[in-house]
Amino acid sequence: MSEPRIVEVRRKILKENDRLARSLRERFRQAGVVVISLVSSPGAGKTTLLERLLSELRSDYRVAALVGDLATENDAARLARSGAPVKQITTGTVCHLDASMVERALADWSLDTLDFLFIENVGNLVCPSSFDLGEDLRLVLVSTPEGEDKPLKYPTIFNTADLAIITKLDLAAATRVDLRVLGENIAAVRPGIRILQLSSETGEGMTELKETLVSWRENRAAHAA
Amino acid sequence: MSEPRIVEVRRKILKENDRLARSLRERFRQAGVVVISLVSSPGAGKTTLLERLLSELRSDYRVAALVGDLATENDAARLARSGAPVKQITTGTVCHLDASMVERALADWSLDTLDFLFIENVGNLVCPSSFDLGEDLRLVLVSTPEGEDKPLKYPTIFNTADLAIITKLDLAAATRVDLRVLGENIAAVRPGIRILQLSSETGEGMTELKETLVSWRENRAAHAA
Repeated sequence: MSEPRIVEVRRKILKENDRLARSLRERFRQAGVVVISLVSSPGAGKTTLLERLLSELRSDYRVAALVGDLATENDAARLARSGAPVKQITTGTVCHLDASMVERALADWSLDTLDFLFIENVGNLVCPSSFDLGEDLRLVLVSTPEGEDKPLKYPTIFNTADLAIITKLDLAAATRVDLRVLGENIAAVRPGIRILQLSSETGEGMTELKETLVSWRENRAAHAA
Repeated sequence: MSEPRIVEVRRKILKENDRLARSLRERFRQAGVVVISLVSSPGAGKTTLLERLLSELRSDYRVAALVGDLATENDAARLARSGAPVKQITTGTVCHLDASMVERALADWSLDTLDFLFIENVGNLVCPSSFDLGEDLRLVLVSTPEGEDKPLKYPTIFNTADLAIITKLDLAAATRVDLRVLGENIAAVRPGIRILQLSSETGEGMTELKETLVSWRENRAAHAA
């Protein structure tokens, strides 16, 4: 298998994905649903954060979630406890979601009954970066135990994100992470990106995240009107 | 791009990799070097563990390391502080090492001057699983902050490992991880695998890991003799 052949196949796959993602984005816009995806390493706290977000947003907004994993339906079961509609996408051996998986998962959902749709990607700091899912906002999470250097070592995933969230703030002292350096490294690969710090465990920083997402939704609605 | 076409391309890539990995394994055997690879999520502690292992083994053995990352030479610089020969492999956007990258990195090294060669893979719980690097032992690391469910959600990487290591034991209390459940989940996807627990921070469990690797080397030498 020659190198150019692989590159060519990859290029075609991405092109098809981009086309489908654009049509999804247009459907989301027409339905008035804001779509937010979450990417991170395995274990950075996507599901725990989403559990909390779904519960807190649910009193004022109509929220739902898709959640990707190679195997198990555990995360969907966890998220469904919030009372929000949740669907699991199992990818088998594929290390990321793609637009066609999202489209299939949404086939029997009415998008216009939703205000926010969250998409939790497979835990991976590499593969999800190139695959547009039609989302409006991509959130990249990095947890304090992962250390300061991850943005420099996995630049593409940080490059393609719209908001960076430092999670597990309650473990910052125990892990002796330097939050200033971590923030600088995120800014180095993605200059100007907004960075929030939070702990889904203690709730610290959750209000700021919620307000950020809500005000983003309001701004978009104002522009659309 | 049709699904069967992608599967076909992937099959050919893996087949070529397997062929090359077999020839590497034979070269390693003839040179008498034991080759140990490390796989895990980003931030699970591969580099820190390797730093410690290289320093501790170096008094009695000739050790060296290859270290894979998408970008930066930081890890090679960190590991080189041990005094052992270290080479960085940067993969660009590729989410795993493959046998040809290992072969190229070793081109100017004399394998028969080594007792142990460590290969640190790109931080990823999905992509590295299918790519044989010719290693004798594959170590999968999972850190306490990642939670108990990772083996169930990423079964293939645990399935293809020879030894499982639970890292960051010093954070077990703060993260409230249930080590018994984590161990059971590893055993569920890879029955019979040996599981070690350690902290590169405090040194707890390091002696047991070192002894395991050394005795594995001695057993192999005895069989080869």
